[in-house]
Amino acid sequence: MKVVKFGGSSLATGSQLEKVLEIVKEDATRRIVVVSAPGKRYEEDMKVTDLLIACGEKKLAGEEIGNLIDTILERYVNIAKELDLSNEIIAKIEEDLLDVLNADNTNKNAYLEAVKACGEDNNAKLVAHFFNAKGVEAVYVNPKDAGLIVSDDPGNAQVLPASYDRLYSLREYKPIVVFPGFFGYSEKGDVITFSRSGSDITGAILANGVKAELYENFTDVDAVYSVNPSIVSSPKEIKELTYREMRELSYAGFSVFHAEALIPAYRAGIPVNVKNTNNPGVPGTRIVASRNNTNGPVIGIANDKGFCSIYISKYLMNREVGFARRILSILEEFQISYEHMPSGIDDLTIILREEQLAGKNEQEIIGRIKEELQAEEIVVEHNLALIMVVGEGMRHNVGTTARATKTLADAGVNIEMINQGSSEVSMMFGVKEPMAKKAVKALYEEFFSQKSLQN
Amino acid sequence: MKVVKFGGSSLATGSQLEKVLEIVKEDATRRIVVVSAPGKRYEEDMKVTDLLIACGEKKLAGEEIGNLIDTILERYVNIAKELDLSNEIIAKIEEDLLDVLNADNTNKNAYLEAVKACGEDNNAKLVAHFFNAKGVEAVYVNPKDAGLIVSDDPGNAQVLPASYDRLYSLREYKPIVVFPGFFGYSEKGDVITFSRSGSDITGAILANGVKAELYENFTDVDAVYSVNPSIVSSPKEIKELTYREMRELSYAGFSVFHAEALIPAYRAGIPVNVKNTNNPGVPGTRIVASRNNTNGPVIGIANDKGFCSIYISKYLMNREVGFARRILSILEEFQISYEHMPSGIDDLTIILREEQLAGKNEQEIIGRIKEELQAEEIVVEHNLALIMVVGEGMRHNVGTTARATKTLADAGVNIEMINQGSSEVSMMFGVKEPMAKKAVKALYEEFFSQKSLQN
Repeated sequence: MKVVKFGGSSLATGSQLEKVLEIVKEDATRRIVVVSAPGKRYEEDMKVTDLLIACGEKKLAGEEIGNLIDTILERYVNIAKELDLSNEIIAKIEEDLLDVLNADNTNKNAYLEAVKACGEDNNAKLVAHFFNAKGVEAVYVNPKDAGLIVSDDPGNAQVLPASYDRLYSLREYKPIVVFPGFFGYSEKGDVITFSRSGSDITGAILANGVKAELYENFTDVDAVYSVNPSIVSSPKEIKELTYREMRELSYAGFSVFHAEALIPAYRAGIPVNVKNTNNPGVPGTRIVASRNNTNGPVIGIANDKGFCSIYISKYLMNREVGFARRILSILEEFQISYEHMPSGIDDLTIILREEQLAGKNEQEIIGRIKEELQAEEIVVEHNLALIMVVGEGMRHNVGTTARATKTLADAGVNIEMINQGSSEVSMMFGVKEPMAKKAVKALYEEFFSQKSLQN
Repeated sequence: MKVVKFGGSSLATGSQLEKVLEIVKEDATRRIVVVSAPGKRYEEDMKVTDLLIACGEKKLAGEEIGNLIDTILERYVNIAKELDLSNEIIAKIEEDLLDVLNADNTNKNAYLEAVKACGEDNNAKLVAHFFNAKGVEAVYVNPKDAGLIVSDDPGNAQVLPASYDRLYSLREYKPIVVFPGFFGYSEKGDVITFSRSGSDITGAILANGVKAELYENFTDVDAVYSVNPSIVSSPKEIKELTYREMRELSYAGFSVFHAEALIPAYRAGIPVNVKNTNNPGVPGTRIVASRNNTNGPVIGIANDKGFCSIYISKYLMNREVGFARRILSILEEFQISYEHMPSGIDDLTIILREEQLAGKNEQEIIGRIKEELQAEEIVVEHNLALIMVVGEGMRHNVGTTARATKTLADAGVNIEMINQGSSEVSMMFGVKEPMAKKAVKALYEEFFSQKSLQN
């Protein structure tokens, strides 16, 4: 049994839904379909979820919503018309939309959560209706009925462990189950949404619950690429990578997939297959627990900007038991989480995301560290980028670090920071932001160009 | 005004003392002489301080001391005879030795401290006597009389700040001041010794107190070498290095000088000159606050073994605020101080000295971390060596890391860990112990061979 999730762009138009139907029909083991809300049809289009949020917020603010509801409904109507569906389903969606948007909104959070979720919910109903109309027996299943119960944490719901056992009974359905992504229900019965990539999370939870053999995640790209295609054109596609590699890449800017979304699948050891709705014949990218290393030491190169560093030095720092712990305690008081902490003998550097410092009093934090730890020098540096060179094959590969650092040197990129633990699934370089693209290009050339792969 | 310190091997025999006298006479600004106890005359010889400790401990244990006192006294007698000194000074030393060794030892700590210190104390008296006998006006000054007051921390005394002002009056002495190294007095008047390299510390404190222009530290080597001479024969001598470079090198095994000993001189910005008593004509090594970078990026390569690592991994570790802080708190409970903590996204590695784990329950520590942080995997690896490539010139030198890593790769040395902060005064590599010598040799060849210096 496979759980198949389709993203917003795979469900934006009637012709996209036809592709989805073909994909589901093609493999009899695709029994559970998780759907997002209709996404963008073209670059400047708006996603249904964004329209819903705009509408809900206007309602809450007591502002005029104009023809927003019509605009939203039209998205479903257009799809239904394109697919020759009956008015019955549109009437149903309209009724639900009006119910949700005109509901009592004394509890603002609960109101917005329900509004946000109805994009997926109605789309699931539409898709199920469409499947049935085309002779493929399907049934819409609501998360509450299926027992998908989550923590009462709006916008950041965590699945409650008891859900998994209940979800197992989804296996019993004869028709194909069409399930809305992005939300579950709290124990007291309120709609609660997941964080961004919420439909990916629903798919992973269902895959875990029904003990699927595979979790297929259909997007609009052929594969996860080995490097950001906006930096290197037509980069190599990744055929297979491990959860850990995916996690390291997604940490540093790979946005195709949020690694957190994978956790339920990861915990159950279920492979994930990222595929393209618009090109379902290509095998896509498989994310697995372990893989054979056949493609050289490096599988991907990621980069992310928006980091800063706090450099702290004090003569004989390393003789002071608890020095680093006290710094981290101060940061924790300010609710700041840090990323890395490379250290010399008498200095250490804390790498953190700029957003962690934003809105906080940088001077106050520096002052506290300076005073309480009697640090001699503290320097904050902004506009750093992190570059991650990722690959399980780097473990025990003597030359990879040398190749990477030489490549950066030859490209004239100064390395501000290197952080390499004993895991060696990744190597991390800190560089100044303006250097990042140049660095990534050079590293890609070194590890992925035809020339280097022949070596 | 210069403060001049002579180590034990510079004071082991009469002929060594004659060299010392010549050195002092040669420069009229050498006004304060700090002396160690007589050191080894040959490889298998015993230092006077070690004889004193052995004697004191036997006394405390109520054991027979045999002819130990004679053996100790003989060291001074031999020197005095060799230099044709009067019996008067020997009688004085003998009286003091017997006083100290036969004193009440109810307070064991205080007794041993006084015993340990009398090696230096009597040697200062002997040297002052010898200088006077040779027509060089000199005076023994006792630390208590000079106002060298320290914390009541036997074997690890810390100078009290008020001492510095009092020591300033040592400038007023007309005769050359001969000052015993290694100890001061507590506020209640007890002898308290410094940690190892204690005479170096005394010299640095005096240099600070009298605002010396230079602190000369006479040993038995021509210079600080750029690498351990037991690994590379006849390595390059370092002419000038910064406090910070010295500190990084001494951290990782350079034993000529303990960096802590320098602190008082460092704080006062006084340069330190390491020189050779047996070859005073050579300029030696200067340790300064800043230097011109003229000799390539690297000034020295140090290595030290006896490290181990604790690797901890947990999926999504970096989303947990306080994860590292909690690990460090557990280590602190066990009184364990760590050295470095490189990290990946979902893993971190704690590098520590083996001695920090010794005698502790490794399993208990691992268990605590596993349970309290719900870590998924914990691996302890022993027998690691750290290699430090040090040099102020590495800052902003694009290619140094590349050269170092390529060198290690070419030598077949796998890098277990790299830790490079934003300071870039040093680069640290963790390798397995059996690889360390090979790694150091290769790095030396790369950065110091004639070939590479011509580049």
